[in-house]
Amino acid sequence: MSLPVSDVNKQPDYRTTMELGAVLPKTAEVKDDHLYIGGVDMVELAKQEGTALYVFDEADLTDRMEQYVSNFHAMYPNSDVAYASKAFINKEIYRIAKAQGMYLDVSGGGELAYAQAVDFPMEHIVVHGNNKTPRELEEAISAGVGHIIVDSRIELGRISEIAGRLGKTQDILMRITPGVEADTHEFIRTGCEDSKFGFTVKDDFAFKCVKDVMAAPNVNLVGFHCHIGSQIFALHSFREAVKVMIEFVARVQKEYGLTVSQLDLGGGLGIAYTAEDEPSTIAEFAEMTTSAVKDFCAEYGIELPHLMVEPGRSIVANAGVTLYTVGILKTLPGIRNIVAIDGGMSDNIRTALYHADYEPVVANKAGQKRDRIVTLVGKHCESGDAVACDRPIQTPEIGDIVCVFCTGAYCYTMASTYNGQPRPAIVFVKDGVARTVTRRETYADLMVRDI
Amino acid sequence: MSLPVSDVNKQPDYRTTMELGAVLPKTAEVKDDHLYIGGVDMVELAKQEGTALYVFDEADLTDRMEQYVSNFHAMYPNSDVAYASKAFINKEIYRIAKAQGMYLDVSGGGELAYAQAVDFPMEHIVVHGNNKTPRELEEAISAGVGHIIVDSRIELGRISEIAGRLGKTQDILMRITPGVEADTHEFIRTGCEDSKFGFTVKDDFAFKCVKDVMAAPNVNLVGFHCHIGSQIFALHSFREAVKVMIEFVARVQKEYGLTVSQLDLGGGLGIAYTAEDEPSTIAEFAEMTTSAVKDFCAEYGIELPHLMVEPGRSIVANAGVTLYTVGILKTLPGIRNIVAIDGGMSDNIRTALYHADYEPVVANKAGQKRDRIVTLVGKHCESGDAVACDRPIQTPEIGDIVCVFCTGAYCYTMASTYNGQPRPAIVFVKDGVARTVTRRETYADLMVRDI
Repeated sequence: MSLPVSDVNKQPDYRTTMELGAVLPKTAEVKDDHLYIGGVDMVELAKQEGTALYVFDEADLTDRMEQYVSNFHAMYPNSDVAYASKAFINKEIYRIAKAQGMYLDVSGGGELAYAQAVDFPMEHIVVHGNNKTPRELEEAISAGVGHIIVDSRIELGRISEIAGRLGKTQDILMRITPGVEADTHEFIRTGCEDSKFGFTVKDDFAFKCVKDVMAAPNVNLVGFHCHIGSQIFALHSFREAVKVMIEFVARVQKEYGLTVSQLDLGGGLGIAYTAEDEPSTIAEFAEMTTSAVKDFCAEYGIELPHLMVEPGRSIVANAGVTLYTVGILKTLPGIRNIVAIDGGMSDNIRTALYHADYEPVVANKAGQKRDRIVTLVGKHCESGDAVACDRPIQTPEIGDIVCVFCTGAYCYTMASTYNGQPRPAIVFVKDGVARTVTRRETYADLMVRDI
Repeated sequence: MSLPVSDVNKQPDYRTTMELGAVLPKTAEVKDDHLYIGGVDMVELAKQEGTALYVFDEADLTDRMEQYVSNFHAMYPNSDVAYASKAFINKEIYRIAKAQGMYLDVSGGGELAYAQAVDFPMEHIVVHGNNKTPRELEEAISAGVGHIIVDSRIELGRISEIAGRLGKTQDILMRITPGVEADTHEFIRTGCEDSKFGFTVKDDFAFKCVKDVMAAPNVNLVGFHCHIGSQIFALHSFREAVKVMIEFVARVQKEYGLTVSQLDLGGGLGIAYTAEDEPSTIAEFAEMTTSAVKDFCAEYGIELPHLMVEPGRSIVANAGVTLYTVGILKTLPGIRNIVAIDGGMSDNIRTALYHADYEPVVANKAGQKRDRIVTLVGKHCESGDAVACDRPIQTPEIGDIVCVFCTGAYCYTMASTYNGQPRPAIVFVKDGVARTVTRRETYADLMVRDI
């Protein structure tokens, strides 16, 4: 793997930090040329806590949770919002989600274990996954989770058997692949979705399976779930999906006489990774989805179900940043300018994996214009190890603190210890106070499972 | 991220497990239709230890270490072989490398910490990295490591300062980017290497820097290092690199009067990931590199230096396999056959990251022909989560144990806990005995750093 070829003619954007718009966490500000988040000087914090360091703007993420909950409750009272744990997980985010009255979307036994560790109400847990293991299903059913999303006929049998053995009746939703897939800007209507997830509507497969699900013992089919993609900018994709889902629900009610009380539309609202991105707001997303549900329920003459959405990225991505220290500068004339930081693909695999773009700034020069184009490479022994390729930044010097924005989602949860790199600490900042909510990994931690 | 489009017309290879050739670990055998490695039944082992499970054929990896050491010593007595830790690390592999008389290539403080934990001789440690932090350099110099590979002028100053402060003189090698880059089958002569690593030979930059390195206090420049790539099938690439390096050494000796006692050619020998791959042997690699060094030293009239190579993948990749249990089967007619296993991108990111190919078999049907083409997907909430795309396998059923070969390198070291997935245990098998050398991660482990 090598770095994508650099455009040597690319011009910097000459923006200062505060001109990065939707990329910034809510409380970002610049004082005396230093970047502050949550009233805390990022430069001082980096020096105290060491780098690489994940920092979260607590006001930003609680505000987004509140926006989700309040908008949905206002527009559609019979609704709940589940936080999608896969985007970012630790005990503290679960405590905050609990305090905000959210539900949790968990997949995998590990995520459920975190929820149990913070005494999250089990009835507010929705369990996802294309291949939950029998052990995980048993853990979830024993724990009394509110809903399990059944993903296949094989899994249906498994849930039914385990629930029976435990003397329980488990509420379940079926995951439907509605043949609507959202791209960033458009949706694609696919007659044959190439997905490992759910029951496809193709050839009426999902519809036929509903009957089996209804007939299965020890489970109670209460509704349907779909998830049409991630990082979606085109809100009308959701309307298309809702249409397919409500049409499906109406048919199921009419032909099978099933009362469908739940509709779970999954997640997918896009966020701004770069200053050029113009994502929709949470309110717009709520308006689009709730009005679509109301419109199509009216059109098909069915009662409004309890509605659920499952945002992850759009709650935590912008709240989180990563701080690094500049260790090495290398100019490769006519090729690229390299800025090496003390992290990389171990704490952020998204750049290598998805060619993700990020906005970096020098936190101790935050008021200055971003007048250089650089490639921010990591410290790993791998050519393709980079956090940001061909991005503008203030002229960097050795020892500078670099802040990379929008790293709150899918960075920590996908982090590795490649090259024996301990995983960074996680600090939540708010009202001038920084508190470490996950401590930095130690060398001893790395070896703790070795015998 | 989505799965690469499946070729629905692809035909299975109808090979049995034992027909997979160079892919197999040394002691692989099939008895009563079960796959055995190290004399241990993989089906029984999976049931005892649970899946996903990393299993290493100890005889295979020690044999490869021995082949490296004995071939190099036979062909070029003044040589040593350093194990490249980044490919796979735990205490046990370090203990074995130590017992085999190998050196260690470490990068990052974590890898050095493992070496210290097993009392690895510090003089046999070579420290790599494009951006070693000041703390890591101090740890390495304090520990008394044999050699540090200096990667830039900035780092030179850092090493010199730290060594001075600690009252030491540190032996160092300069990393040279020789303008020879190896592809799998060919090499590319690049006048301007786009790399974050080392001192480029372009515009005589590296040559000019040698003078600064020689002049720096508290360091002792003993030689040069290069690394031309990974997974290399074209051995003549190494000869090209040796030529550039020896020419460089000759010039340095002649013009600067420096005695160059060390030449470190890095790693890069390719291995068989699929049955179609035809990599060179360790003996061929040793022959190519040692004869090139001898030839060009004779040609340029210089003394034979101490020679070092740094294999990682070619020692551990084929020795390691991953065992999974089949949880879900889904046929998407005209699209693909999905086999969902209880692991995925958390224990093997290489498929998503590099579009790597792997050979899977059903361990409990190992003697049968691989008569299906499937996509082996993981259990993660991510569309692109797959371990093997469009690969032949024996007709799989629920509960079958799948063995994916050649996962010994860059799987465990790059593993994450995505979706709260605990990292698998690591079991070494030999002479009919299985011993757990790294225990499975627990849910409690996942949360241990949370406050």
